[in-house]
Amino acid sequence: MPHIPLDPQLPGIRALMAYRPETAVPLNHLAQTLLRGPSTLTIGERELIAAVVSNGNECRFCHGSHAAAAAETLEGGRPVVDAACAGVDDAPVSEKIKALLRIALATRETGRAVTEELVAAARTEGATDLELHDTVLIAAAFCMYNRYVDGLATIAPEDPAAYEQMGKVLAAEGYGR
Amino acid sequence: MPHIPLDPQLPGIRALMAYRPETAVPLNHLAQTLLRGPSTLTIGERELIAAVVSNGNECRFCHGSHAAAAAETLEGGRPVVDAACAGVDDAPVSEKIKALLRIALATRETGRAVTEELVAAARTEGATDLELHDTVLIAAAFCMYNRYVDGLATIAPEDPAAYEQMGKVLAAEGYGR
Repeated sequence: MPHIPLDPQLPGIRALMAYRPETAVPLNHLAQTLLRGPSTLTIGERELIAAVVSNGNECRFCHGSHAAAAAETLEGGRPVVDAACAGVDDAPVSEKIKALLRIALATRETGRAVTEELVAAARTEGATDLELHDTVLIAAAFCMYNRYVDGLATIAPEDPAAYEQMGKVLAAEGYGR
Repeated sequence: MPHIPLDPQLPGIRALMAYRPETAVPLNHLAQTLLRGPSTLTIGERELIAAVVSNGNECRFCHGSHAAAAAETLEGGRPVVDAACAGVDDAPVSEKIKALLRIALATRETGRAVTEELVAAARTEGATDLELHDTVLIAAAFCMYNRYVDGLATIAPEDPAAYEQMGKVLAAEGYGR
């Protein structure tokens, strides 16, 4: 049960955004800019970073919804997303995306875990400065969203179909801007 | 040295905000809403939460700048801020603020560490729903800012006077909105 009185019809962060619209605006604006704004990373690749980090943080709501959004948008769909969440090394994604996911998972642990070596490896695979920047900020932002959602004990549906539906909406509509 | 080419004249998150103004807008908007918007928590209390979480995450730049902002704005100033960063239990702050700082530090670890007991203890000391919400979101947001700043290896000045100056600016001007 949530720690504060939230609309029981709304799952996860949606209930928090309805509760506190003043903070919902910049939270949505940030997600929209990072995950839907102009980028040399595809929407699917960016949703994959969000899903892998949320999985690492064991946030059921964020992992479920962003894995579903990635499954809708990433080349290869659901099997690729599940493989990347299970382990980056064996995932059927490009070497560049593997290198960026390793940076995202290091960021999840602590910013100081993002080493020169991890950055150099990503550059060798063709990652640009802006891709490195956005990978770190997407990972950092999901360390916020995950803690926000779980720290207030919001409702995370059990039914996979609920997340599939959320993934379709996120793929079609983005984050409200 | 930063992992991407940043203006060497700008420390910490300021260099990142100059590098990527599109994400700087919602990042500043979020900080301004949480730390300077209408609240029953004082500015000093909210900056103290930011400082204690940043200290827990060992982010020198964010701890230095927000501890300085808290020292400018919190009743009791610098000695109270340093005591709270050293340990919540013995800090010369109210029982309500101690309870909220314990929730912030739990959020820092993982959202799932925010227990019913921690929330009930804060309520016993008079914490409101909105104060609980904002405490979790401030703590979660600094888990983002800290990882962003350190994950891209931004410059953190060594000189305490640099942070004192930043604290004065943050106290006087806030976060740009």
